[in-house]
Amino acid sequence: MSDYNAPIADMHFVLREVVGLDEIAALPGYEEATPDLVDAVLEEAGRLARDVLAPLNQSGDREGATFENGVVRTAAGFPEAYQQFVDGGWGSLPFDPEYGGQGLPWTVATAVQEMWNAANLSFSLAPLLTQGAVESLQTHGTPEQKATYLPHMISGRWSGTMNLTEPQAGSDVGALKARAVKQGDHYLITGQKVFITWGEHDCAENIIHMVLARTPDAPAGTRGISLFIVPKFLPKADGTLGERNDLRCVSLEHKLGIHASPTAIMAYGDSSGAIGYLVGAENRGMECMFTMMNNARISVGVQGLAIAERAYQQARDFARERVQSRAIDSRDGPGVAIIQHPDVRRMLMTMKATLEAMRALAYVAAAALDRAKRAPDEEARAAAQARIDLLTPMVKSWLTDCGCEIASLGVQIHGGMGFIEETGAAQHYRDARILPIYEGTNGIQALDLMARKLLRDKGAAAATLLLEMRSDVTAIDSPEAKAVGEALIDLDAATDWMLETGAKDLRLAAAGATPYLRLFATVTGGWLMARSAAAAQRLLDAGEAQPDRSFLEAKIQTARFYADNILPRASAEAAATMRGAYSTLALSDAHL
Amino acid sequence: MSDYNAPIADMHFVLREVVGLDEIAALPGYEEATPDLVDAVLEEAGRLARDVLAPLNQSGDREGATFENGVVRTAAGFPEAYQQFVDGGWGSLPFDPEYGGQGLPWTVATAVQEMWNAANLSFSLAPLLTQGAVESLQTHGTPEQKATYLPHMISGRWSGTMNLTEPQAGSDVGALKARAVKQGDHYLITGQKVFITWGEHDCAENIIHMVLARTPDAPAGTRGISLFIVPKFLPKADGTLGERNDLRCVSLEHKLGIHASPTAIMAYGDSSGAIGYLVGAENRGMECMFTMMNNARISVGVQGLAIAERAYQQARDFARERVQSRAIDSRDGPGVAIIQHPDVRRMLMTMKATLEAMRALAYVAAAALDRAKRAPDEEARAAAQARIDLLTPMVKSWLTDCGCEIASLGVQIHGGMGFIEETGAAQHYRDARILPIYEGTNGIQALDLMARKLLRDKGAAAATLLLEMRSDVTAIDSPEAKAVGEALIDLDAATDWMLETGAKDLRLAAAGATPYLRLFATVTGGWLMARSAAAAQRLLDAGEAQPDRSFLEAKIQTARFYADNILPRASAEAAATMRGAYSTLALSDAHL
Repeated sequence: MSDYNAPIADMHFVLREVVGLDEIAALPGYEEATPDLVDAVLEEAGRLARDVLAPLNQSGDREGATFENGVVRTAAGFPEAYQQFVDGGWGSLPFDPEYGGQGLPWTVATAVQEMWNAANLSFSLAPLLTQGAVESLQTHGTPEQKATYLPHMISGRWSGTMNLTEPQAGSDVGALKARAVKQGDHYLITGQKVFITWGEHDCAENIIHMVLARTPDAPAGTRGISLFIVPKFLPKADGTLGERNDLRCVSLEHKLGIHASPTAIMAYGDSSGAIGYLVGAENRGMECMFTMMNNARISVGVQGLAIAERAYQQARDFARERVQSRAIDSRDGPGVAIIQHPDVRRMLMTMKATLEAMRALAYVAAAALDRAKRAPDEEARAAAQARIDLLTPMVKSWLTDCGCEIASLGVQIHGGMGFIEETGAAQHYRDARILPIYEGTNGIQALDLMARKLLRDKGAAAATLLLEMRSDVTAIDSPEAKAVGEALIDLDAATDWMLETGAKDLRLAAAGATPYLRLFATVTGGWLMARSAAAAQRLLDAGEAQPDRSFLEAKIQTARFYADNILPRASAEAAATMRGAYSTLALSDAHL
Repeated sequence: MSDYNAPIADMHFVLREVVGLDEIAALPGYEEATPDLVDAVLEEAGRLARDVLAPLNQSGDREGATFENGVVRTAAGFPEAYQQFVDGGWGSLPFDPEYGGQGLPWTVATAVQEMWNAANLSFSLAPLLTQGAVESLQTHGTPEQKATYLPHMISGRWSGTMNLTEPQAGSDVGALKARAVKQGDHYLITGQKVFITWGEHDCAENIIHMVLARTPDAPAGTRGISLFIVPKFLPKADGTLGERNDLRCVSLEHKLGIHASPTAIMAYGDSSGAIGYLVGAENRGMECMFTMMNNARISVGVQGLAIAERAYQQARDFARERVQSRAIDSRDGPGVAIIQHPDVRRMLMTMKATLEAMRALAYVAAAALDRAKRAPDEEARAAAQARIDLLTPMVKSWLTDCGCEIASLGVQIHGGMGFIEETGAAQHYRDARILPIYEGTNGIQALDLMARKLLRDKGAAAATLLLEMRSDVTAIDSPEAKAVGEALIDLDAATDWMLETGAKDLRLAAAGATPYLRLFATVTGGWLMARSAAAAQRLLDAGEAQPDRSFLEAKIQTARFYADNILPRASAEAAATMRGAYSTLALSDAHL
């Protein structure tokens, strides 16, 4: 079993020096996010993650969630840990104080979320799904719906789910068939949903299912979908739990990873129809769903970061302890810890540099979310919204792809032990693999970046970011900044290609969408690493030693490693975007 | 469950047009490898792979091998399938007819081996380990040892194992502690070995363990290791099985993948000492072991290719059937099979192009093995040996890294279904993960390429290959060949850097070893793809339609895709080699 210690020093550094937490704390409504409070929140969350959630990660994987006689039981310790999580108010950090939330910035909530996910990915999916449902109700619910559901969901006493997928409707949400027939003040829902994360469990008092369904005569496709609140237990007028609704878990899936997260097949309305309450207007369900999904996409990216950090800590600790072979330049010396072997070092540095870039990108995205919600003038809010829209598919895809790559390196560093389940490294490799798939596959994210985020505004939001990056790296005098400047030439060219090609041949542009996303994210990560290094250099020059000088020196060396070892991938992705798209489409289906 | 159909058309093409099977068949002793015979062998092997081995792949994964009361049982159907394999003489293809082998070229045996591994990786490890033991005995055994063991092992009635690893001695084989004390005509072996593949099972009549151990007073490290034959049942003078030897399986490991392959912890000499027979001279065990390992490394590379092919077939078949969303350039059309979506196409083409390059590289390496063994003049044999030595670490590392990448893409193409174990895509992802680890981790391979294969001969073998590639791509007039020509500039530069750096700073060179290996292999793969495309073009120009024109056109388009999408990675690896090595070593251990 491996320990997890929240990387608070790096979190602090990114929040203060890269994201500019003081600016976020200056936004209206976030005044409470003082440095002292943020420090206290991170410290306390780190303790819960380390002492309560992390120790259940491996046992949860081994036991899994079980389904018997219609009852889902989570692994030993999960209900108690969930109760501690609720008692600590940890689910409520970023939500509206009116409904019991703590009103902290998403930026801070994101750092905390990284900890839950690193400690126990399966566990963290429960509050993550609840968060999505809360966001959707906060934005689209009626005052009565908010009053009925939000306090319980924000506290975590009731958990939430998202019910989109049906067997024939995965990425194609518009193909769903679940029906909703109006009856008085509610609807009767019938249909089957699959892949419902934490769809049934024994941790919360009630489960609030957010279900997409079609009313009779609704238009085909996504324009005929409505969103419904379908509670497991129907709340009574006094807020207590009433009757069991007509919905049930049919079975749990047998998955590659996240075994402790119950993934349910759900049946609605087997008897008389499940009672559901419309959220927003009829046929506007996709809009409500996107409110849930957009935040969830950032959160899934954070999961990629989290599992990378966990895998890194475990591999590094192993590499410090495992003695094997002499140093390469010593013929007769003693055996050394493998951390001293250059190739092991290369793997660890790849993990560390990549995940620090991932962290910077995730927190910067969260800060844009805060600005989009709270910036005092409309123009600033709109600019922040454009930024978060642009960054969301990158955060979701790049962080999850890198999460898988880093978890795989974690296995590799363990050698033969890595392949043995008891070691725990393999669990991260298995758990991480869902991340590029759920909440919109990474391929869907790339299309989102291309079509909705680049072509729709004719490249305006991208141009703003590119200009900001260019201006930043021009102002910084460092090898890292210079390398980013060179990579920006590739990114500029690929962006132009994408805009031109997308205007005349969407299919061809789509063939380049994934390498383009990777190019964009890799360069953006490089930019943030160059900014990190520059900030560290400033602090060093100013004689600051916070947290200590060698930490700051390490930030610079890690940024250098990124520039030398990770950033060069950008040119390969640029080639795959601009030249590769043509050959992607050349072969006929029959010859694949 | 997924079907497996051996890709015989592509195997034929590579064997004939890229490898030059006719030249191999012209080598002394290989005269029987006529085109007709090779066709018949491939067809027949393809049938066994499809009808007998492939159907046991998923059930074997689910059941695994079990250990109870000291007895190991393989999954249902495995003993019977093994018997069919033995009855068909499939283990004997490349071995000496004097001992019952069929004397076919390794080139042909390698293509056949790809099929076994693709059909059932766990199963195929049994004959693979036997093959290693046979090779070692063929080369280093006494005539009596050969007569006693080889016929039974070549037939497969007895299987073989390799016993190197001990808990403290993994990559550092020299740290092993198992003891061997001479007693008359044999030795008494004591010690524990871990990670012993097919170390105990119920498929063969006897198991011949090849065990590395130290005699008393042997020098420390690898120079004091000897190799012993330690049979499970001691053969009697008449060749029948005698007493049970003093060795036992202690337990089986619980692994991430290859569940149906029993990975044993073995105890030797718990009672009186296990009887072992020395192979070769005392203290020369590493030499004998390398005979086993070098071939095994090529074979493990072939496993990477095999699982890539299997994952590809499954993903492609799924993509042809799964209907989801409209075509990207159609707003109201019907749903289409996802194979028509450009991003799915990109993933499938990445799988196909990479694995075709992998296949070409593996078969070319096998042909070098045949030439090194059978070429009539010594100079040709030496040149072929230098080539196979150079290619071995690339085949082992690059093919297994790519195998993991391709298995992961296979999961991704399945979307949510890919994460569900019943689908089978996740098994390939789990199974593939051992390949970069066993038979020398890929990091060890990179050091082998750098130190033993490049620095030791001062780059002579590499220069010969680089010159051959340069000359080839200069002679070919195609965009693919031009792209390889450009990538060769990077490879030349990195090779020079590696030679210069290695001469003065081994630690720095080691930090660049893995990206250098990837660079070398990626370019070599590109070269072989360009040659494939040129051969296809020649056949098209000559009006040949073998197997059909569109197959040949597909070879050209696939090579183009490789040049546009995969080959550009070479420049990133070159940067990571030459610039990246410095920053890899910059950070102190404490700050990792």
